[in-house]
Amino acid sequence: MTDQRIILTPGPVTTSVATRQAMLRDYSLNEPEFLALTAELRATLVELANGGERYVCVPLQGTGNGANEATLGTLVPRGRKLLIISNGFYGERLKQIAPAIGLTAVALDLPITQPATADALEAALAADPAIGHVVVCHVDTGTGLLNPIEPLAAVCRRRGVGLIVDAIASFGGLPLDACALDAEAIVVSPNKWLEGVPGLAAVLVRRAALEAAEGRCHSYCLDLYRQWRSFEDSGRWRFTPPTQATAALVAALRQYLAEGQAARLARVRRNWRCLVDGLRALGFETVLANEVASPVITTFHQPADPNYERERFFAAMWRRGFVMFRGSLTPFPTFRIGCMGAFDDKVMREVVRAVGEAMAEMGVTDCRPAHQQTAAE
Amino acid sequence: MTDQRIILTPGPVTTSVATRQAMLRDYSLNEPEFLALTAELRATLVELANGGERYVCVPLQGTGNGANEATLGTLVPRGRKLLIISNGFYGERLKQIAPAIGLTAVALDLPITQPATADALEAALAADPAIGHVVVCHVDTGTGLLNPIEPLAAVCRRRGVGLIVDAIASFGGLPLDACALDAEAIVVSPNKWLEGVPGLAAVLVRRAALEAAEGRCHSYCLDLYRQWRSFEDSGRWRFTPPTQATAALVAALRQYLAEGQAARLARVRRNWRCLVDGLRALGFETVLANEVASPVITTFHQPADPNYERERFFAAMWRRGFVMFRGSLTPFPTFRIGCMGAFDDKVMREVVRAVGEAMAEMGVTDCRPAHQQTAAE
Repeated sequence: MTDQRIILTPGPVTTSVATRQAMLRDYSLNEPEFLALTAELRATLVELANGGERYVCVPLQGTGNGANEATLGTLVPRGRKLLIISNGFYGERLKQIAPAIGLTAVALDLPITQPATADALEAALAADPAIGHVVVCHVDTGTGLLNPIEPLAAVCRRRGVGLIVDAIASFGGLPLDACALDAEAIVVSPNKWLEGVPGLAAVLVRRAALEAAEGRCHSYCLDLYRQWRSFEDSGRWRFTPPTQATAALVAALRQYLAEGQAARLARVRRNWRCLVDGLRALGFETVLANEVASPVITTFHQPADPNYERERFFAAMWRRGFVMFRGSLTPFPTFRIGCMGAFDDKVMREVVRAVGEAMAEMGVTDCRPAHQQTAAE
Repeated sequence: MTDQRIILTPGPVTTSVATRQAMLRDYSLNEPEFLALTAELRATLVELANGGERYVCVPLQGTGNGANEATLGTLVPRGRKLLIISNGFYGERLKQIAPAIGLTAVALDLPITQPATADALEAALAADPAIGHVVVCHVDTGTGLLNPIEPLAAVCRRRGVGLIVDAIASFGGLPLDACALDAEAIVVSPNKWLEGVPGLAAVLVRRAALEAAEGRCHSYCLDLYRQWRSFEDSGRWRFTPPTQATAALVAALRQYLAEGQAARLARVRRNWRCLVDGLRALGFETVLANEVASPVITTFHQPADPNYERERFFAAMWRRGFVMFRGSLTPFPTFRIGCMGAFDDKVMREVVRAVGEAMAEMGVTDCRPAHQQTAAE
């Protein structure tokens, strides 16, 4: 595949050849081999989350956003309030979903560079006893900000509030122990750390919460309860599954297990380390301090140098075999480079070199953002 | 691919090698090549429906059921009623979706062997002036029953009622002219006649209806209006698309255009003809008379012969390279064999032979259903 470039976005990521080749076969919905793939997928995801017998995996056709909507719509009772922690683009997305599906939501808004803390959550819950659930993005890929989940989960446990973790950008990389957290639900994407392809999502849900959720969802197709019943009753998907994407995810999960969670995290962390060190050495500035950053993706301030042109930069990277994300998800001009996917820091060194060459091509000599240049003057 | 069997279900169908190979590449969401695939997909589907400038194509991640829910939830005003024509399993499915998403629906229930007629629709609409929309399955794959759309559309046009066609099982095979029908929406699946893979659906919608639908949908992710705005404003999918399934569908559409609609229909019709003639010659009885049947799938009565065992039958077909659908969607025991997919009547002759061999293996000597045996006595 000569036209296969390395994808430097936070998903869909670059997948392995073996994962893509798993899509070279058609499956019928209910043939034994496909049902076995489905069972393997569900069991593996529960195991990765340390879900034991208390958690079930509900795969869902479609997108991560759809899985977030399904989870909120199925699990949050309409008479109670949902608290949405927001410190980034995807927190804001959750704030759009909730009212659109009839939930009463309040927000804990934080700066996009500041992780949520137990104290802030404690105060928000104390201020409004009607809050029955909290939802938080574990990693907000708008910047790459990491919200440490343990302290937030501890507050939820103490207060008897349900915790829903949008782990779309973290699951499979950053450790998440469903039982220890006592999370009500963890929303998972196949096409991030797990290096599968897009077309489905999955939710790990506390079985008891799901059992209590019959008849609650605003949607027929996004109803996690009904979706779960089908898997539980017959092992079958409720509606036509994305058969090839399912087969690809199972192939990717087998490769993931062979690599191991710690090694996968270490590899992506090396990619990240190589990227931030390399671009800082070129003069770029990251939006986040290392202490609050995840290795998922790094957001860099756009250089103030008048020779910098975003489209020329992306085109120069494209010619060198790298696909960048077109568009900035911050209130100020930035670009993002993702670190997940089927590649290692040898490739990331080429990325750093390519960025340097692209700047030289454009005649950008100063990669610092405007505020740094001002500060230096 | 030695383990690739011919799929004898009404979808996902057997696809061509070229279609599957289109999935061997990863795409980033917004790279030019993927945006070009998306534009080609949308334009081709509008063209196939003869949608001209009046119709737009809104692809949607997920399933055909999801697209039906999105269409109903986006287009049907909550103050008006929806009439659901039901003469099969998928008509019943629509009757489940509508109340679950807050629509007020009434049903025109017909026997599963009887197509909807203009007279029946006319009477139903005359009886309830609050009905603003009608939805009908063009082909109900529970049996294969064909509901002729033209006469139904004529009634809707005359009465100023919006027509929503669930064309999941017919689009690409049976002709559908959006402008001539003046349908409000036509729901399309990639993994039936078009021979793509599952993971998305698409809706062809009258532009004016969509423009009037802002803010109506019960769901955030299934909101066709918001989904359309993203394509319209930037050419981009609103949320992460199933990139490989999209590439596969574009590859399948190119093959479809090379074959031509008439030739595709003729090929599948030959498959169907070969199947029904062959199995009738063995003594099997179809549920539907030819006059009301589509060539999509044929439903056969289960033989009354006590030696017949469904699981042994399916296993015998499996060993011969054919995957059958496990489960019957009729109130009485039947099995179904689908005729769509990347194969021709040479293969279907092997299917007929395999069915004969499977019966012989089981010692089934009389393939007639119970009521025929009784009638003959």
